[in-house]
Amino acid sequence: MARRARSRRDTGAAAIAAPPSPFIRRSLPFFDVLDEETVVKLEGQVDWILQEVGIEFRDDPDALRIWREAGADVSDCRVKAPADWVRSLCAKAPKEFTQIARNPERSVTIGGRNQVFAPIYGAPFVRDLEHGRRYGDLDALEKLVKLAYMHPNLHHTGLVIVEPCDIPVSHRHLDMLYLHMSRSDKPHLGAITEMSRAEDSVAMAEILHGREVMDKHCVIMGNVNTNSPLLVDKVVTQAIRVYCGRGQGIIVVPFILSGAMGPVSTAASVTQAMAEAMICCAFAQLVRPGAPFVLGNFLSSMSLKSGAPTFGMPEPVISNYAIGQMARRAGLPLRCGGSLTASKIEDAQAAYESADSMHSTMLAGSNYTLHAAGWLEGGLCTGFEKLVMDADRLGSYQKVLDHGLVVDDESLARDAYGEVVPGGHFLGCGHTMRNYTEAFYEPKLSDSENVESWEDGGSKDMRVRAFERWNAMLEQYEQPELDVATDEALREFVARRKREIPEAWY
Amino acid sequence: MARRARSRRDTGAAAIAAPPSPFIRRSLPFFDVLDEETVVKLEGQVDWILQEVGIEFRDDPDALRIWREAGADVSDCRVKAPADWVRSLCAKAPKEFTQIARNPERSVTIGGRNQVFAPIYGAPFVRDLEHGRRYGDLDALEKLVKLAYMHPNLHHTGLVIVEPCDIPVSHRHLDMLYLHMSRSDKPHLGAITEMSRAEDSVAMAEILHGREVMDKHCVIMGNVNTNSPLLVDKVVTQAIRVYCGRGQGIIVVPFILSGAMGPVSTAASVTQAMAEAMICCAFAQLVRPGAPFVLGNFLSSMSLKSGAPTFGMPEPVISNYAIGQMARRAGLPLRCGGSLTASKIEDAQAAYESADSMHSTMLAGSNYTLHAAGWLEGGLCTGFEKLVMDADRLGSYQKVLDHGLVVDDESLARDAYGEVVPGGHFLGCGHTMRNYTEAFYEPKLSDSENVESWEDGGSKDMRVRAFERWNAMLEQYEQPELDVATDEALREFVARRKREIPEAWY
Repeated sequence: MARRARSRRDTGAAAIAAPPSPFIRRSLPFFDVLDEETVVKLEGQVDWILQEVGIEFRDDPDALRIWREAGADVSDCRVKAPADWVRSLCAKAPKEFTQIARNPERSVTIGGRNQVFAPIYGAPFVRDLEHGRRYGDLDALEKLVKLAYMHPNLHHTGLVIVEPCDIPVSHRHLDMLYLHMSRSDKPHLGAITEMSRAEDSVAMAEILHGREVMDKHCVIMGNVNTNSPLLVDKVVTQAIRVYCGRGQGIIVVPFILSGAMGPVSTAASVTQAMAEAMICCAFAQLVRPGAPFVLGNFLSSMSLKSGAPTFGMPEPVISNYAIGQMARRAGLPLRCGGSLTASKIEDAQAAYESADSMHSTMLAGSNYTLHAAGWLEGGLCTGFEKLVMDADRLGSYQKVLDHGLVVDDESLARDAYGEVVPGGHFLGCGHTMRNYTEAFYEPKLSDSENVESWEDGGSKDMRVRAFERWNAMLEQYEQPELDVATDEALREFVARRKREIPEAWY
Repeated sequence: MARRARSRRDTGAAAIAAPPSPFIRRSLPFFDVLDEETVVKLEGQVDWILQEVGIEFRDDPDALRIWREAGADVSDCRVKAPADWVRSLCAKAPKEFTQIARNPERSVTIGGRNQVFAPIYGAPFVRDLEHGRRYGDLDALEKLVKLAYMHPNLHHTGLVIVEPCDIPVSHRHLDMLYLHMSRSDKPHLGAITEMSRAEDSVAMAEILHGREVMDKHCVIMGNVNTNSPLLVDKVVTQAIRVYCGRGQGIIVVPFILSGAMGPVSTAASVTQAMAEAMICCAFAQLVRPGAPFVLGNFLSSMSLKSGAPTFGMPEPVISNYAIGQMARRAGLPLRCGGSLTASKIEDAQAAYESADSMHSTMLAGSNYTLHAAGWLEGGLCTGFEKLVMDADRLGSYQKVLDHGLVVDDESLARDAYGEVVPGGHFLGCGHTMRNYTEAFYEPKLSDSENVESWEDGGSKDMRVRAFERWNAMLEQYEQPELDVATDEALREFVARRKREIPEAWY
């Protein structure tokens, strides 16, 4: 069952960029929270939404044409489709697939028993202990890309770790992609906000990886939200057409604040998310059978006081467990959860909420987890300290998932009981000497010393230690090598497209 | 499957003392992390320890006499016993039992699908935002007992929420018990440190509950640690003889810091804990067949830098899941985990570690959880803020466990989809209006407002809000009624015993 690991230890500058493994190969069993009768009832509701309620596809006549040609019931822009047909289309999507990184050692496999952690996506604001809260800019994004690249517990760098608000909206995707492609060699995402930006992303990926690799492999993915409830706009369908049309991956995520974009019920919101994502998966398979697809779920609860979204609460926790089981039954790779919180700063609230959210995310088997590190303020703000704090905890989750409970002759340690008498101690015994260096996860940011040592060191709380760590990491940053001609071609592409695309700030 | 709850909402002063329910009746399935082959291998190791290695019972000739008379292999003080026999003795312990509270509405059922949360136990120091870190005293303990009584998410008040260090050690148990009996009407524990103190605890419980109730029911329990590895001293055997001899409950907990009190391996430490606790359970059943017994496990990992214990790490997380499964197979109620951390203050480290520790504790099915709230500094310090912060999160866990995912016609909300158009919102629809007040857990200490509101409110972090909350709670405290004659009898008992027992400070 569980594997015994002999991973390299993260001990210094060189090791910072070396992950314990490029993604998680889970040995821990999955946790099924729903009995058969219940899950069948939920699937029945998914089918009912697909068949009887239908989902609207707006603003993209090509999408409606594709649906009509495939034989769906399309009335105005509402698509109703037999659930069996939708499920048979979804079955064409790979249960797991590999996203190739430009450094092959960093390629990740998404789906099945594999799990991948990526940083926060999409925040307009950024915060750190020295400069406080401010709009994100390209400088902040560059630092965050470097940190995501260097951090051993992040497998993937996402894309919009923060919005570079100092760059025109119409040019941002070019600068963002170039940062991910040049400052890191981990896999990342492409842009989706307009069809041309998705096309630029795919074009830059082709420059980076070469046409031949791209023809055969997934090298880039887009991540896109439906307009819940039950609405899929052209941002989604065009992104699917661009990415999947080129054999690349797409992640479609209904964001449902229960009571607003879905019924005020976790069960209903989960079924709605399944229906919205599955109809998009079916659409992707119509565009290109076998296109890599990740089924997303992003469910939040609500404060009764103000209607503000809340995170890390029991409703999204249970929705993570439930959606994990439903996605496994559907045979689709899953994105859900993350280290989510409504807290404005890196206080205990942020950590409690993030940990409960992420503990359930990882146990639920989320195959690709955006927002695994750095999220503050309901996703409006990226925290530099929060990024390395969350990521420090991700190493613990990776050990739980990778290793489970290792049970073999060595771990049962019978020889130790021949050496140690009752009431004695195992500190120096042979088994301990053979195993202690690999026995425990070594967090970087937890202080476990006694109170006197901690006070002597300045009574630093975790935020301060995190601030010191990310600054130290950046000082040790070394840019991964990139072929000079490729780099030149990427720069030329960016420069040319910036000349072609008018500057727009919204 | 999951139950639909219509619990009373905690809305004000009066409601503060009213828990959503006096204990958790779990509808969520259990999470089994071990396959059959692995769990059989672990049980084989437990049997090997019991039969071949043996466990020493020291300093209590009566305990050795009981073992010899029962037919165990006793050599010097090492007891070896056929595993089948130990398991058949353990089978005499109830799978679940009820501890009667003096207010019957607060009685708790321990074992099976039931889970009970209690505060930290045994810290010599106490900390709060106003007074900082200091030795515990009777005044602090009184406040903490009141808070544990008032908090809706704590089901049980434990005993030594902090050590009252201003009271002679030899008299402390009397004052502690009187506080729990008079300031609260929730169930609590008794003392164990010396045989006479256990006897005093049982005698006071008899005054409080009456002989007749006590003859028929568990009204008090002791919580005691083995001297791992493989050593059971007289504190344990005498506590078992006193509590179980009177038909009361006992919790026996091997505290194993892997690499010191057990091999540097989670698998071996879990089997050692099982063996140590099961031999004590067998002993308890020899003392009195059917005596309520809780099998404990308290496993910590270690910092490689200093050898200091660490908490909330992957090794204790996985041990919680594994021990939960093994305890269910053994048919014994379980105590494990808690909201544990090595942090000195209520920062993000404390919250991350506590949440991961407690999330795994609750999912593991720990039936009785000491240290569910208030723990800091590896258990050396009780935090007033930490107590209410942790307890706020316990309400979320209770909802996850009690409710699971509620799936029925109302929660599937099909009528809502008749009202809401694609791209619309569910805010005012009938289903939302019928359900929103009960839809979401309402934490007291999470701030989910936007950054402007939060800043307008003074940018208070969770510690500050927690400080304000526990002070507000104490202002609203009302002592639960206690029969005057009973109160008088308890006071007389305490006064008499203080005259009889010489003051001792160690």
